[in-house]
Amino acid sequence: MSAEAIMSLISSAAQPGDTLAALDTPSLILDLDAFEDNLKTMQALAEHHGVALRPHAKAHKCADIAQRQIALGAQGICCQKVTEAAAFIAAGITDIHISNEIVGASKIGLLARLAKHAQLSVCVDHIQPLKSLSEALVAQDAQMGIFVEIDLGQQRCGVQTIEEAVKLAQATAALPNVWLKGVQAYHGGIQHERSHEARYQASQAAAQRVQEVIDAIAKVGLECPVITGAGTGTALFDVASGVYTEIQPGSYAFMDNDYGQLEWGEGATFQHSLFVLGTVMSVPTPTRAIVDVGLKSTTAESGLPRPYGLTGVTCTGLHDEHTMLDADKSVHRPPLGSLVKLVPGHCDPTFNLHDTVVVMRGDTVEALWPITARGLSR
Amino acid sequence: MSAEAIMSLISSAAQPGDTLAALDTPSLILDLDAFEDNLKTMQALAEHHGVALRPHAKAHKCADIAQRQIALGAQGICCQKVTEAAAFIAAGITDIHISNEIVGASKIGLLARLAKHAQLSVCVDHIQPLKSLSEALVAQDAQMGIFVEIDLGQQRCGVQTIEEAVKLAQATAALPNVWLKGVQAYHGGIQHERSHEARYQASQAAAQRVQEVIDAIAKVGLECPVITGAGTGTALFDVASGVYTEIQPGSYAFMDNDYGQLEWGEGATFQHSLFVLGTVMSVPTPTRAIVDVGLKSTTAESGLPRPYGLTGVTCTGLHDEHTMLDADKSVHRPPLGSLVKLVPGHCDPTFNLHDTVVVMRGDTVEALWPITARGLSR
Repeated sequence: MSAEAIMSLISSAAQPGDTLAALDTPSLILDLDAFEDNLKTMQALAEHHGVALRPHAKAHKCADIAQRQIALGAQGICCQKVTEAAAFIAAGITDIHISNEIVGASKIGLLARLAKHAQLSVCVDHIQPLKSLSEALVAQDAQMGIFVEIDLGQQRCGVQTIEEAVKLAQATAALPNVWLKGVQAYHGGIQHERSHEARYQASQAAAQRVQEVIDAIAKVGLECPVITGAGTGTALFDVASGVYTEIQPGSYAFMDNDYGQLEWGEGATFQHSLFVLGTVMSVPTPTRAIVDVGLKSTTAESGLPRPYGLTGVTCTGLHDEHTMLDADKSVHRPPLGSLVKLVPGHCDPTFNLHDTVVVMRGDTVEALWPITARGLSR
Repeated sequence: MSAEAIMSLISSAAQPGDTLAALDTPSLILDLDAFEDNLKTMQALAEHHGVALRPHAKAHKCADIAQRQIALGAQGICCQKVTEAAAFIAAGITDIHISNEIVGASKIGLLARLAKHAQLSVCVDHIQPLKSLSEALVAQDAQMGIFVEIDLGQQRCGVQTIEEAVKLAQATAALPNVWLKGVQAYHGGIQHERSHEARYQASQAAAQRVQEVIDAIAKVGLECPVITGAGTGTALFDVASGVYTEIQPGSYAFMDNDYGQLEWGEGATFQHSLFVLGTVMSVPTPTRAIVDVGLKSTTAESGLPRPYGLTGVTCTGLHDEHTMLDADKSVHRPPLGSLVKLVPGHCDPTFNLHDTVVVMRGDTVEALWPITARGLSR
């Protein structure tokens, strides 16, 4: 039997019209009602404050999701990688900010070629790649908006001082085929602060720092039309800061278990819309259930997944191909062969493990959406 | 421009004949010399003790790697999932043990169909899926070897008592188209005990428990031709236990950073052969270097990746698309644009993030091997 014939024995995990009970596992599933509510909530929040929403597509890598975000009013999307952006451009998305530094001849060459096919912008925190990009854009006869990235204390990328930010802004203004689009000011660390008050205070401090940078750039006669940043954890505060003109949250559409544990206060709230569906494959003791979902279907670096809708059942471990559940003696352990929904610990790398997300309207499969940029990390 | 034309702008990360310096990043790379040494060391260890080696292919999901393991004398391979096994059968591997419980009509149906095309065995720890499998095999006119899995204290799958093991062995002997191939006794938890002595003691205790199960099964007149188990951490002890007839280690071929931290004593030693290659994309301070490798290219649940060959440089964090490195002030921080090799924390889920592994002989790309079963988790 040929290799193709062997592989054709594998049936699809789901077909449109299937009910949840018919799905094979592990499957990544999206609850459309919750997802659509989340999209509308964030869009309304941004619009209420007159701030643009540019959702981060690194969270989902899925063109169908990006298209729905844009249809509701999003300005475009963010990507983190050049190949990821290529996949979204190929899917018809025309306005993409690469919220990251791009270094190396191969990546800069691709970025410049893609600039012929979409409205792109990118971050810089060093003169050298900025110069290389300008040269590559000249060669392609293409243009690109540049954001000077500042480090707000995350200790990742971004310039450290106001003087460096001003210098890079001036260098951008002086180089051909690049133009100063603004400042990127994103602090990933504070997104996950559990306390509402702590996130508010951190967001205020960050906004003040951003304002100092904008003022210094203005002082040398340069404008920053766009100030972009913010994630799901601080979006509520950042839209009202008067500093950001654009926010780039991603996880709000899905609400993984990590973000679900934040104190949300009385602001906008988001619902879990993303789950990994598993099957109980072993029930070796009266309280233990082993589910066929492992590290290759959901990631663990932001904590274990949480069994959804199973009061008294906790996740005690995640191995390569197993989730360990423990049921309190007072409750029923899910039976052998039953389906279990898990809320992933961290949505971004979990999406990247799957080729497809199974899209559910209530209990029925409405569509299968490909994870367009799955595995595209260059 | 068409979607295909856009995607064709992305060049391959590597071509045979390229030097390391020419690779685009992130790339998963395999050092063939170290890899081949590792394969030979484990094969010699198994042969010295007259024990079969059946490497676990969940570690790599790569048919080219499995073929090299078998060419050196491995009995066949282990898989963890039915779709994973299908991909290896399609690639021509004919002897596969599924070292896991398989539950659900769709999976059992596929397993029975695959049994027409390869010599397969599978684990059971419950009568219900055993009966379903027997029925499915009858329908396909196929046969399958059955391993009763026992829980050695890992608290995952496997029967809890000797009585249950005997009952399942008897049920297997009584059902059509399945036959008792033996006992699977694998303790994942003890593989990662840092201390050589602690792993030895745990391995001895486990072997004693396995012997009690074999004896009880023999007492009811049933034979267990194969006793399978062991991982990279205890293989050295398990081959000499007199109990195991087959070992199923996987990570030994690659030695991730977690296994690399074990005390190996004077026994067989293994070398790091697997790396994720990254580029320094930002150098915001004199001691900080940010590398373009994140959670979508290497996983973090077993600890952070380790920069290889960079004394005084430590990894301080891993985000979705960034590795944070910190250089001691006494050493040189890797410069912007330079390549950095990272030893992944955990090889199994890291392989599963990549479509291809770039195979290096010294400094030169020898081949690109597809990760055959990447993403096949059902």
